[in-house]
Amino acid sequence: MPLVVTGTIGIDTVHTPAASRERILGGSAVYFAAAASHFGPVRLVAAAGDDLPQAFRDTIAHFKSIDSKGLEIRQGSKTFAWGGKYHENMVQRETIFTHLGVLEERPPAVPAAYADSEFVFLGNTHPAVQNSFLASFPKRKLVVADTMDLWINIAKPELLTLLKNVDGLALNNDEAELLTGKKNPVTAARHILAMGPRFVIVKKGEHGCILVHKDGIASLPAYPTENVVDPTGAGDSFAGGVMGSLAATSAANQGKTDAGSFDQVRKALVFGTVTASYTVESFSLDSLKAIHRSDIDQRYNEYAAMVRV
Amino acid sequence: MPLVVTGTIGIDTVHTPAASRERILGGSAVYFAAAASHFGPVRLVAAAGDDLPQAFRDTIAHFKSIDSKGLEIRQGSKTFAWGGKYHENMVQRETIFTHLGVLEERPPAVPAAYADSEFVFLGNTHPAVQNSFLASFPKRKLVVADTMDLWINIAKPELLTLLKNVDGLALNNDEAELLTGKKNPVTAARHILAMGPRFVIVKKGEHGCILVHKDGIASLPAYPTENVVDPTGAGDSFAGGVMGSLAATSAANQGKTDAGSFDQVRKALVFGTVTASYTVESFSLDSLKAIHRSDIDQRYNEYAAMVRV
Repeated sequence: MPLVVTGTIGIDTVHTPAASRERILGGSAVYFAAAASHFGPVRLVAAAGDDLPQAFRDTIAHFKSIDSKGLEIRQGSKTFAWGGKYHENMVQRETIFTHLGVLEERPPAVPAAYADSEFVFLGNTHPAVQNSFLASFPKRKLVVADTMDLWINIAKPELLTLLKNVDGLALNNDEAELLTGKKNPVTAARHILAMGPRFVIVKKGEHGCILVHKDGIASLPAYPTENVVDPTGAGDSFAGGVMGSLAATSAANQGKTDAGSFDQVRKALVFGTVTASYTVESFSLDSLKAIHRSDIDQRYNEYAAMVRV
Repeated sequence: MPLVVTGTIGIDTVHTPAASRERILGGSAVYFAAAASHFGPVRLVAAAGDDLPQAFRDTIAHFKSIDSKGLEIRQGSKTFAWGGKYHENMVQRETIFTHLGVLEERPPAVPAAYADSEFVFLGNTHPAVQNSFLASFPKRKLVVADTMDLWINIAKPELLTLLKNVDGLALNNDEAELLTGKKNPVTAARHILAMGPRFVIVKKGEHGCILVHKDGIASLPAYPTENVVDPTGAGDSFAGGVMGSLAATSAANQGKTDAGSFDQVRKALVFGTVTASYTVESFSLDSLKAIHRSDIDQRYNEYAAMVRV
């Protein structure tokens, strides 16, 4: 059940109250793919400039389950670069700089070999671009998109079109309110269901997430880690864990079960939660690189004990 | 396993974006007792002035399991009155007025008949007063205290003394940070454990709570209600559900199990969560008055399904 992610690769500069890192590997598709790779193969579609450090390519290559044929290195272009600074609480952050670079150009090309992708995660970008990717995946069975406040503000019609073409939408609680005008996350998510998707994942950062699915509601706290080093990439890693585990379960079931069912998505959210808890314990992909699937399973069990009712 | 709560009874004026109510029944001990009464008997210790409306006494009398012999009506004194206004998000609020009234006088007298109380909840007040109540409960087996930022700021030595005499402390995440200087709620709670209690309940409002117990950690989301009418009293109702269910379980077990054990407290937190979810669905005690234990059990099951891993 091939899984593909479209999104960004970036050169991040991150300042936290405790430490700083300059020019480290980041980007939505990269965090997603690194997280998803712990569950099975994942195809990476993203564009970089020719300034992408070789060390970044080596790091990606370390994740054997990432297929990076879809990582397009564009000559004469610059890689997307982002700099941010986290506040004392490690939740709020401010952007120090954004160099869009290659993101201002055409979207990355999707390799023909990816046409049989069945699980598709459309990382955050202009919704018209997200929508255009769908044509490259005619065998798609489960499509989930991420979005952000920028697109809700400047490209709402295109976002509404996209929502008719996806199974699920992931967004944070502020974005859910911005999109619907409803403050209550469950109410907001119900309104989004009426726009097309069959499930909405409302991400609440260190407070966990709420799943509002046409067949039910689930609520999950975050894994209460004490060791938050850098929250960058947590949401993308969460999505990677969700989609990676959904694709792996579907593969194990030979596609006999509905990967977008309430029960499957709920279970996948736990894998996403646990995987993201590792991401925040280091800068960049350091933790995701250091762990194995057995670490995820062990923390899954710890988490299950913590939230047991 | 008699349960007693010490705290306030108040005349509340509440403004929310959708509605306002003037001079309605409130107060920490009242919300606590109304919530706890759904699980078993609860003794109420609080002082009011002679201006306490008869209708308030009738409302309290409606809860057959509340023993209000400890409600002291003090002639010539004024009942504590509080006015607050909630922001659009129904989370932040500002205090419009506080008339301390009887709260500036001596603490309420504890009836001699309450001396055999085994479960004690010390509602939020000056920690020296909370500490002084303990002498009235020589048979106490499980003592949990609430506190707030005011006491951490102006009475920290007394609070630290109190912490040596309680089994559990309930406080919100900002208060946990204020008390310990640690932003991470789990880290903060661990520091509080070192101050005396064997468990700390970090309340996160609409994001649920974290239990840090010397024998383990639990994390629970709030019940994702869409119908938040008035959050006033949610924390006190939560505590009432926790202590009420602990006392009831202990009674059912004839005191053979340790009511303060990790597993017992964790399970009690779910009852607290569910009970508080009713409180916020109305002003004052309206919801707590309208429901029955069967409603709590039904929502407990719904909640368990929502958070199932």
